Amino acid sequence: MSELSSELKSAAEELDAADGLAELRERFVLDDVVYLDGNSLGALPAHVPDRVTDVVRRQWGELRIRSWEESGWWTAPERIGDRIAPLVGAATGQIVVGDSTSVNVFKALVAAVRMAREDAPARDEIIVDAATFPTDGYIAESAARMTGCALRPVAPAEVPSALGDRTAAVLLNHVDYRTGRLHDLPALTAAVHAAGAYAVWDLCHSAGALPVGLDEHGVDLAVGCTYKYLNGGPGSPAYLYVRRELQDRFDSPLPGWNSHAEPFGMRPGYEPASGARRGRVGTPDILSLLALEAALDVWDEDGVSVAAVRAKSLALTDFFLRCVGEYVPDGRVESVTPAAHAERGSQVALRCDDAGEVMKRLIERGVVGDFRAPDVLRFGFTPLYVGFADVERAARVLALTLAETG
Amino acid sequence: MSELSSELKSAAEELDAADGLAELRERFVLDDVVYLDGNSLGALPAHVPDRVTDVVRRQWGELRIRSWEESGWWTAPERIGDRIAPLVGAATGQIVVGDSTSVNVFKALVAAVRMAREDAPARDEIIVDAATFPTDGYIAESAARMTGCALRPVAPAEVPSALGDRTAAVLLNHVDYRTGRLHDLPALTAAVHAAGAYAVWDLCHSAGALPVGLDEHGVDLAVGCTYKYLNGGPGSPAYLYVRRELQDRFDSPLPGWNSHAEPFGMRPGYEPASGARRGRVGTPDILSLLALEAALDVWDEDGVSVAAVRAKSLALTDFFLRCVGEYVPDGRVESVTPAAHAERGSQVALRCDDAGEVMKRLIERGVVGDFRAPDVLRFGFTPLYVGFADVERAARVLALTLAETG
Repeated sequence: MSELSSELKSAAEELDAADGLAELRERFVLDDVVYLDGNSLGALPAHVPDRVTDVVRRQWGELRIRSWEESGWWTAPERIGDRIAPLVGAATGQIVVGDSTSVNVFKALVAAVRMAREDAPARDEIIVDAATFPTDGYIAESAARMTGCALRPVAPAEVPSALGDRTAAVLLNHVDYRTGRLHDLPALTAAVHAAGAYAVWDLCHSAGALPVGLDEHGVDLAVGCTYKYLNGGPGSPAYLYVRRELQDRFDSPLPGWNSHAEPFGMRPGYEPASGARRGRVGTPDILSLLALEAALDVWDEDGVSVAAVRAKSLALTDFFLRCVGEYVPDGRVESVTPAAHAERGSQVALRCDDAGEVMKRLIERGVVGDFRAPDVLRFGFTPLYVGFADVERAARVLALTLAETG
Repeated sequence: MSELSSELKSAAEELDAADGLAELRERFVLDDVVYLDGNSLGALPAHVPDRVTDVVRRQWGELRIRSWEESGWWTAPERIGDRIAPLVGAATGQIVVGDSTSVNVFKALVAAVRMAREDAPARDEIIVDAATFPTDGYIAESAARMTGCALRPVAPAEVPSALGDRTAAVLLNHVDYRTGRLHDLPALTAAVHAAGAYAVWDLCHSAGALPVGLDEHGVDLAVGCTYKYLNGGPGSPAYLYVRRELQDRFDSPLPGWNSHAEPFGMRPGYEPASGARRGRVGTPDILSLLALEAALDVWDEDGVSVAAVRAKSLALTDFFLRCVGEYVPDGRVESVTPAAHAERGSQVALRCDDAGEVMKRLIERGVVGDFRAPDVLRFGFTPLYVGFADVERAARVLALTLAETG
């Protein structure tokens, strides 16, 4: 063991010993792999399989149709929304779970444009983060086309100067999926409001990793997935937040029967429900929903809070940047993730020309991150189950791998 | 035991003894309840829980992100679509599974209107089944609003005379959810085509219970749920069929990244995939999808075919109508389900003023159907697990219950 490695291993040991969240790792199914891909698919909480078995064997198998009432299936979308609410700084009654993120982006953007048009009919432009995860851009293009708006891609930093009398809605990512940059949600939301437009935030890469403050900052609408830092499982349903004051004006482009004021009245005319339920569409996907509900129990453990998670997340990414800085020769990789805490999500993205080959080898060596074309190594840090020894090992194996390639 | 009851019980025994599908009941988790609500939520196939456990514990828990490739998660929507295809008379490559029925109705109707407009820009009317399950009507209203069309509710029998130069698309139910009436898909599709419009069929209450013949009859687009006669589990994802010849013209209003030609290219511009995948939107809901995939194995058993299921379905509903006719005094209930086989789905709906109270008592006595407001008792017959003795018992308990009430 080199002196350097010995020093960083000791540092990791001390950090792990002082980590108030360290014991949570036992709540997850993990092996000897360093799993830094929880920002793509969160690890399995150990208690979830038995809960899913109960849903399948007893709730579906034995109670069958009775479970819509007796097992609380019907109300699951709002109930689980209320479990997510405190994690994103929302009071209860404003979040509903269901459908994919893409479908929720469509609902949110179309509804935002309709609200803006009610205020000022001439508003005919949607602004979208120019570096957005692609699906948001594709869906925004469709929302623009179907509401008669133009779509304008703008870098988040340029949004304030791009806003104007024509702006109806602005769709932004809280954390950039590629670079890990954390955007300034309070300031950007305030700027959107000052222009008389509506702010729609995509929280996929921030919810469960850092404070969001939806209510505090007056966000209008928000969407997010639940299979990253919320560990809901592969393709678990997304959620939609509609600020309470706007719920009566939420005019959904997907007014399915689940959002009807009286869904079992089987009425031919549509009358929207009040509250968060207005964001629902069709029959909720119970297996995935209830796996997610179980996964959220982790947040009820003693000492777990978004603040504690954020503090550890920053310590993890700081330590990773330090280890990479010490292990990897200067210039071999370049961090595209901001160094400033206020601008950093819970991931570190490193640029190098041979990133695809490097990530392949890293995974073979038990360090799992992901590759984002064309040249980014992406490492996600889930504070609930990633420790500092993992971080040291990941950086060390990365240095070894980079020394072989390139 | 009365003479009448003895005679019908013997008849049931003979029918059960001659039933080539009788052994399939063992493949399902059932108890001493007569479950005639499989047209709302299909019973649990006995092998599904272990398959779901494997998906959760091994595929998610151990392989984690690798399962998108190694466990075939990414291709599940098309692969499972190809399993449903033979059940609805479609060649492979035309069905994709995902999202709810409501969301798929939106995709199908908007795409149908866009195709019609390409052919003839002046088409500006959507016709919808006036007795449709409500969600189809609500979503059709939204599709009409967002494409600049008028929505016109028309009784299916009147559709041929309502079609015209303005008709863009027609949305019809193959089987009426309330009355159980089977509509004439071949003739109505031909009439829609003769008018130059596009036919969208909702198969929720027919798929898995009777032949559909999508390819044979030239249906343009179709949607359906998978939790009724396909036994996919509560809220299991729906499917979308786009006829092969129309796939290149399918212009989705929900062009999420899963439908991109190169989804992992992370390109800012949208380019649609070819084939059925173009109907996808966001990340597929893996737990529910793979539970459905497991459930479909039942259709691979020896002797199981849509034709055999249909023959038994008609025998079951015939026998139920006979038992009701013999046990229940004339005039106490009225069947709103057509007597003609060509017009009957796999359910029997009986009208009586006190239907809500009657169904409550029936369920207490172990005969589970459902109540549809204001006055319908609905009994669904899933030939895979309902037998003739069940049918006799249901009718007998119904007669007993009706004698007490009303």
